[in-house]
Amino acid sequence: MRKEVDEMLTPEKISKIDKSCIHLKYLKWPEYFFEALRADVNFPEVTEVDRIILAGMGGSGIVGDVIRDWLAPSRGLPIHVVKDYHLPGFVDKETFVVAISYSGNTEETLGIINEAISRRCALAVISSGGLAEELSLKLNIPHTKIMSGLPPRAAFPLLFVCTALVMQKSELIEAGEDLYESGETLKQLGNLLTPEMETEKNPSKRVAIWLHGALPIIYGSCLNGSVVLRFKGSLNENAKTHAVADVLPELCHNDLVAWDLDLELPRKAVFVRFVGEPPEVRERFDAVKEQIEGTSSEVYEVWPPGESHLSRILSAIYLLDFASIYLAVLRGVDPTPTKSIDKMKRRLGVKLRYLETYTDLPLKPPSR
Amino acid sequence: MRKEVDEMLTPEKISKIDKSCIHLKYLKWPEYFFEALRADVNFPEVTEVDRIILAGMGGSGIVGDVIRDWLAPSRGLPIHVVKDYHLPGFVDKETFVVAISYSGNTEETLGIINEAISRRCALAVISSGGLAEELSLKLNIPHTKIMSGLPPRAAFPLLFVCTALVMQKSELIEAGEDLYESGETLKQLGNLLTPEMETEKNPSKRVAIWLHGALPIIYGSCLNGSVVLRFKGSLNENAKTHAVADVLPELCHNDLVAWDLDLELPRKAVFVRFVGEPPEVRERFDAVKEQIEGTSSEVYEVWPPGESHLSRILSAIYLLDFASIYLAVLRGVDPTPTKSIDKMKRRLGVKLRYLETYTDLPLKPPSR
Repeated sequence: MRKEVDEMLTPEKISKIDKSCIHLKYLKWPEYFFEALRADVNFPEVTEVDRIILAGMGGSGIVGDVIRDWLAPSRGLPIHVVKDYHLPGFVDKETFVVAISYSGNTEETLGIINEAISRRCALAVISSGGLAEELSLKLNIPHTKIMSGLPPRAAFPLLFVCTALVMQKSELIEAGEDLYESGETLKQLGNLLTPEMETEKNPSKRVAIWLHGALPIIYGSCLNGSVVLRFKGSLNENAKTHAVADVLPELCHNDLVAWDLDLELPRKAVFVRFVGEPPEVRERFDAVKEQIEGTSSEVYEVWPPGESHLSRILSAIYLLDFASIYLAVLRGVDPTPTKSIDKMKRRLGVKLRYLETYTDLPLKPPSR
Repeated sequence: MRKEVDEMLTPEKISKIDKSCIHLKYLKWPEYFFEALRADVNFPEVTEVDRIILAGMGGSGIVGDVIRDWLAPSRGLPIHVVKDYHLPGFVDKETFVVAISYSGNTEETLGIINEAISRRCALAVISSGGLAEELSLKLNIPHTKIMSGLPPRAAFPLLFVCTALVMQKSELIEAGEDLYESGETLKQLGNLLTPEMETEKNPSKRVAIWLHGALPIIYGSCLNGSVVLRFKGSLNENAKTHAVADVLPELCHNDLVAWDLDLELPRKAVFVRFVGEPPEVRERFDAVKEQIEGTSSEVYEVWPPGESHLSRILSAIYLLDFASIYLAVLRGVDPTPTKSIDKMKRRLGVKLRYLETYTDLPLKPPSR
């Protein structure tokens, strides 16, 4: 039986279905991470700032969620994550905005850059190029350029590290040893996630096999909402499956009830646990597990490695992103192409041309 | 055919399955709304406040999301919604905290009250009684008491209006005519949602019939994320089904891809649209609809009535909550009982006893 399962995810089979070799790009994550740690990032001079906006969409926007989770317990400035065309009404010149768009052509994020300029915010931009870079050069906005040519989700370590460095060099956060330790954790974990590593020792393969054929129900906690959200996104993009993503304690007030019915529905729960969870979180996980197992399903628990809160967040993302690639293989679908997103971008590209003709500052903002 | 469909949701059938008559409580929403508008609310004296925290869980916590959506475009103070045991690290005495717990015994919200006291925040508490009330009376915290005896989700108008009034009387927000107009909209809409109203004219019955037998995929926009989240919660609690809830533009970067595969999966999309959406939102909805319809499913669009942004948010919640009750009827399950939540509460009740023995200020906080 074990042999049979292992043969579902052999290096040969993986290479055959993962035609664009996204798994090879993911294998380079530790390398990307340390490269980015040595990068020269550009940041604005910050004088009076009392809040931070991290703006971006999809694989770029998740960086904001991760940074918010990481710093939530610390005494720093409040962080707002914006995944929208517009800045919230309260944003003014005392706001520090980091606009992150891997392609540099994300319609929403270009809108945010535009509004941040109008409102005279302290602004930094991160992209691999595109209009965001052009605009930044033209308008003297500090821009950090990262390596291009990756699917945005595969560029996560570059996007994350550069954003963290921009915040640190602006003296808005104090990363300490967390970044270096996280890179080391990714390096060690990466060895376990490779196609060559057999299923029994490969946590990503195990999650993929667990989820195959089921609707994934991903539960995390208030410590790692960003991980749960990212895993949902990776399941959507790589494995082309819907997924339910929720965090406790909130899910104990609603999603949990859904397990009482639909006992025949093929659904499987994955819990994202963290070593060192506070007792109230541990207690809730235990209770939820007991209740789910009392209805229709076993529960699979993932315990990502890492010493710091940040390294656990990042190693969980690494492990689960790889799981979404292996799930794509099990489903016989190439993880790289995202047909619908490409189609959407082509359609919106027509609209975006107005931004190419910018001559004035501020640009014409999207209407509201 | 129409007659056949109508007969699935007759007043008789509804009353037979909705044994605890939650639909009668929902029919009273306009009444609750105007009653609450006349309520005496209690609020702290606010001097130097630069941010607002709205804290609560489930049917109480959604109030924060609604208020944030409502006020997002306005120039007021930043609002943070907290659904957790703990306040974020940045919270200090310049923070205004409203703690909302319908029962007054919600573990998480009691933890928040406790931390807000320790950090010397401006604090207001809203509950129908419970420990939150006891504690408030004992410690001279402004407490607003609302009618008890409802399932928390059915008490939404009471919770929402009282929270808005607390914020308004503290001069933190300017509600203007929005509240009154919203009450009027709910009153008119209520007439269409009753069990007696035939399916063709009853938007809630139509949504329920649309979703019956499928996994609900609920898509809204950056204007109404709170509505989408609330509908997910109501589907969980009333209809006992999982659901995927997402908002655009973000969903265009991930969830959309999932429609490309699983063409045989019984899933149905509901879009929550708003009259007067800005063009970039309308454009995205059109594009997403086109793509979904190009794969596996038609799309059902809900256009809630209302003149103001707030009244559209509230009427959407009313319409969709009723839909979740009708879906429960179609699924043959009593919408009121939430077995898992009750079981969870009993389990946690043992732990909560420590709060009953409070003698000192601050209380012993949950660990982190």
